[in-house]
Amino acid sequence: MQLRSVILVLGFLLLVTAACLLIPAAIALLYREGDWPAYLAACGIGLAVGGALFWLGRGAAEPRAREGFAIVTFGWLCVGLLGAVPLSLSGQIPSYTDAAFESISGFTTTGASILTDIEGRSHATLLWRALTQWLGGMGIVVLALAILPLLGVGGMQLYRAEVPGPSPDRLTPRIRSTAKRLWGVYFLLTLLEAVALMIAGIGPFDAVCHAFATMATGGFSTRNGSVGAFGSPAVEWIVILFMFLAGTNFTLHYLALTGNLRAYWRDEEFRFYAKIVLSAGLAVILVLWRADFFASIGATVRHGLFQMVSIITTTGFGTSDYLLWPPFTHAVLLIAMAVGGCAGSTGGGIKVMRVVVLLKQGKCEMNKLLHPRGVFTLWFNERALPSGLATHVLGFFLLFVLVYVAGVLVLTLGGRDLVTAVGATAATLGNVGPGLGEVGPASNYAGMVDWEKWLLMFLMLIGRLEIYTVLVLLLPGAWRKS
Amino acid sequence: MQLRSVILVLGFLLLVTAACLLIPAAIALLYREGDWPAYLAACGIGLAVGGALFWLGRGAAEPRAREGFAIVTFGWLCVGLLGAVPLSLSGQIPSYTDAAFESISGFTTTGASILTDIEGRSHATLLWRALTQWLGGMGIVVLALAILPLLGVGGMQLYRAEVPGPSPDRLTPRIRSTAKRLWGVYFLLTLLEAVALMIAGIGPFDAVCHAFATMATGGFSTRNGSVGAFGSPAVEWIVILFMFLAGTNFTLHYLALTGNLRAYWRDEEFRFYAKIVLSAGLAVILVLWRADFFASIGATVRHGLFQMVSIITTTGFGTSDYLLWPPFTHAVLLIAMAVGGCAGSTGGGIKVMRVVVLLKQGKCEMNKLLHPRGVFTLWFNERALPSGLATHVLGFFLLFVLVYVAGVLVLTLGGRDLVTAVGATAATLGNVGPGLGEVGPASNYAGMVDWEKWLLMFLMLIGRLEIYTVLVLLLPGAWRKS
Repeated sequence: MQLRSVILVLGFLLLVTAACLLIPAAIALLYREGDWPAYLAACGIGLAVGGALFWLGRGAAEPRAREGFAIVTFGWLCVGLLGAVPLSLSGQIPSYTDAAFESISGFTTTGASILTDIEGRSHATLLWRALTQWLGGMGIVVLALAILPLLGVGGMQLYRAEVPGPSPDRLTPRIRSTAKRLWGVYFLLTLLEAVALMIAGIGPFDAVCHAFATMATGGFSTRNGSVGAFGSPAVEWIVILFMFLAGTNFTLHYLALTGNLRAYWRDEEFRFYAKIVLSAGLAVILVLWRADFFASIGATVRHGLFQMVSIITTTGFGTSDYLLWPPFTHAVLLIAMAVGGCAGSTGGGIKVMRVVVLLKQGKCEMNKLLHPRGVFTLWFNERALPSGLATHVLGFFLLFVLVYVAGVLVLTLGGRDLVTAVGATAATLGNVGPGLGEVGPASNYAGMVDWEKWLLMFLMLIGRLEIYTVLVLLLPGAWRKS
Repeated sequence: MQLRSVILVLGFLLLVTAACLLIPAAIALLYREGDWPAYLAACGIGLAVGGALFWLGRGAAEPRAREGFAIVTFGWLCVGLLGAVPLSLSGQIPSYTDAAFESISGFTTTGASILTDIEGRSHATLLWRALTQWLGGMGIVVLALAILPLLGVGGMQLYRAEVPGPSPDRLTPRIRSTAKRLWGVYFLLTLLEAVALMIAGIGPFDAVCHAFATMATGGFSTRNGSVGAFGSPAVEWIVILFMFLAGTNFTLHYLALTGNLRAYWRDEEFRFYAKIVLSAGLAVILVLWRADFFASIGATVRHGLFQMVSIITTTGFGTSDYLLWPPFTHAVLLIAMAVGGCAGSTGGGIKVMRVVVLLKQGKCEMNKLLHPRGVFTLWFNERALPSGLATHVLGFFLLFVLVYVAGVLVLTLGGRDLVTAVGATAATLGNVGPGLGEVGPASNYAGMVDWEKWLLMFLMLIGRLEIYTVLVLLLPGAWRKS
């Protein structure tokens, strides 16, 4: 491990975050609220620490794959911890643990909250919550499409060939070129949604905050009742559309914007994603309709599809308390939670691409039993998968389950009931936000004690950074001098 | 598929079962109970159908791997359906669906029951329930050690080299030689347990029935209160010991009986199995002790260890209603349920061997990320694993999860609550018996409707036959003429 290059990048990330802290400071001044000094102070801390690290790391060599793991993990952690400072300093979320929970939940685009009264918070707090998600979401897309394939994490190599770039030995040049293109797409889609929401009748502040939270599949709302609070079907349909887009590989949006609209349907992952959303959404809608849950068929379709898209993209917005829905919908939503969005989207979970590879692998294993001497090739997007890749994806799935099980074990050891433990672990590891039981959609994480909150923050990071990235750092070999 | 050789073996299995039906008939006559005609009638049906099939299949070629899948799946199904006939005919379990549930639960050594009043049943019924488990248990051991390795199912090939036999192209001679050796071990251990239980003060009938159900890791008891009903610590310790032995690879017992006692500790799977039982058992005991759940430390250790061994070996005997225990113990027990016994034991679940391979594979995948050009070999019992084997085991794990998820989906679609659906699916697919919620240890499956019972029977078969065996038959390729 060449620590110096890690330190350099961490310093850079803190400097960028510090600059971003000026936006909520300006908002506080604009709304004449008293918490602008907290944001300026946090900005100062960020500049000082970030600057010091940047200076310490000056002249470092370009980071290689091995440093990539440390940069990604500690990057998200440092930025999350810095983002918590103004929330805590301003007295809006006095406990630093709570502030860190909110901030890390934001940067990991989880959307789990400890706030019981969201509407009572200052504008700066609400904007900063949304902005942490938006920044985190952009980070995730760059991570998934530019950094992880180089690190070889969990089958993300599938997209290596799609995005041409310099040799995989040096990370930075490639990240820059990919980031620039995706940044534009991300910005444009966010702008489109904000404008659409304003046309639908929402004020500019709420519209921007919700556009930030939607495109990041984060799920922080400015209202206690989430998106449902606006009581506007048009708003809900707009959010459904943009959640769906946010759960799509951003490379496809880029290709579509450059005129190649057929790119969507030519992508096997996108086809599967659209099919799951439609078929599982339809199943949920039919069950809700048979149970006469909503007054009209229109409301049934809207609420069913909203919750389905919100959960599979791991956004976590709500329009209805799904814990009151029939049990079948819970099972479908829990599975959707695990599946997650497409690779290269801002969505969390296992990722649709991996699920497709897993299903193909399952079928292949059965065929092998019938034809023990047969040679089978897995195809994805009309290319043969490298032989080690399926094992890699299976390994990812296995680690996902192991971390999940470990999370449930520790939470129940602390005395939580099984449903809450299962819900909280699934919702944080999958970066969804709302869970089941005591942390369900009509509730929040305020009732958790401090060590539980830190554990859940760790799960958010592990889930967000594709598990391998964090766990690899636990191997002694990661720290050996090379 | 050469159907003729499948038919021949199915006929043979039905004839054997028909002969076994004479034992409960004799018991009914001995206790002067009126249900002996039902057993004789069932025996007659078995002889007629079995004889007819045997005659139809005469002169068939030796079955090959491809036929193996059909023989195993339909064999268990036919025997289970025949075993239900006397239960239903005798009026002891009037509904044929209920009788089939009890019989298939027995032959798959699951131990899930629809009986609300076990003690009110006739001796013949109770003995036949225990005997179905014992016969099923023996079948499972032969299946795991002699048949599955030849079929190449789910990593069972690991044991191929251990048990020398004829070439893998023809199944029968090898099965015969292995079955003979294991039959002796199985019989001896059952006898030992029955004698030990009698010395501990239990009557011969109860002792034999419990020895049958223990060695098969089945879990059918002759008492409403399961093993706890005897109120004897000595009995419980004896059952703990024999459940543990039943969850061990029977090859090791064979080696130990031929003088090679060190075989146990030289086997990596056994070491891991022993470590899980001890460490997870200790964790459960400590939590129970801290919660002051039982009056004495002796009772705490006994109940904790009993439940731990009963669940990990998927026996399903009970001494205490674990649903009242602290939630942490539920999480541990649910995990133990999934792990299951050793390969080549009568225990169900994923199997310890596969779990060991999965964990090694997970670590290997992480090491690969650090050393992308490194070559890693998985070792098991001091032998390098063939390269495709880890993928095979991962595929098994994946299919296990998929079938599990499908089971939960269908049960909740029918209106079951999520906890009951999760518990019932886990308990039947893992061949444990008692689940959670409405099918918990203090309850049973009587409240399920008919289609749910048939679904659960299907899950028992899939779980018992290592998933692949049944699912392979769903591929069109399995039925093509070769």
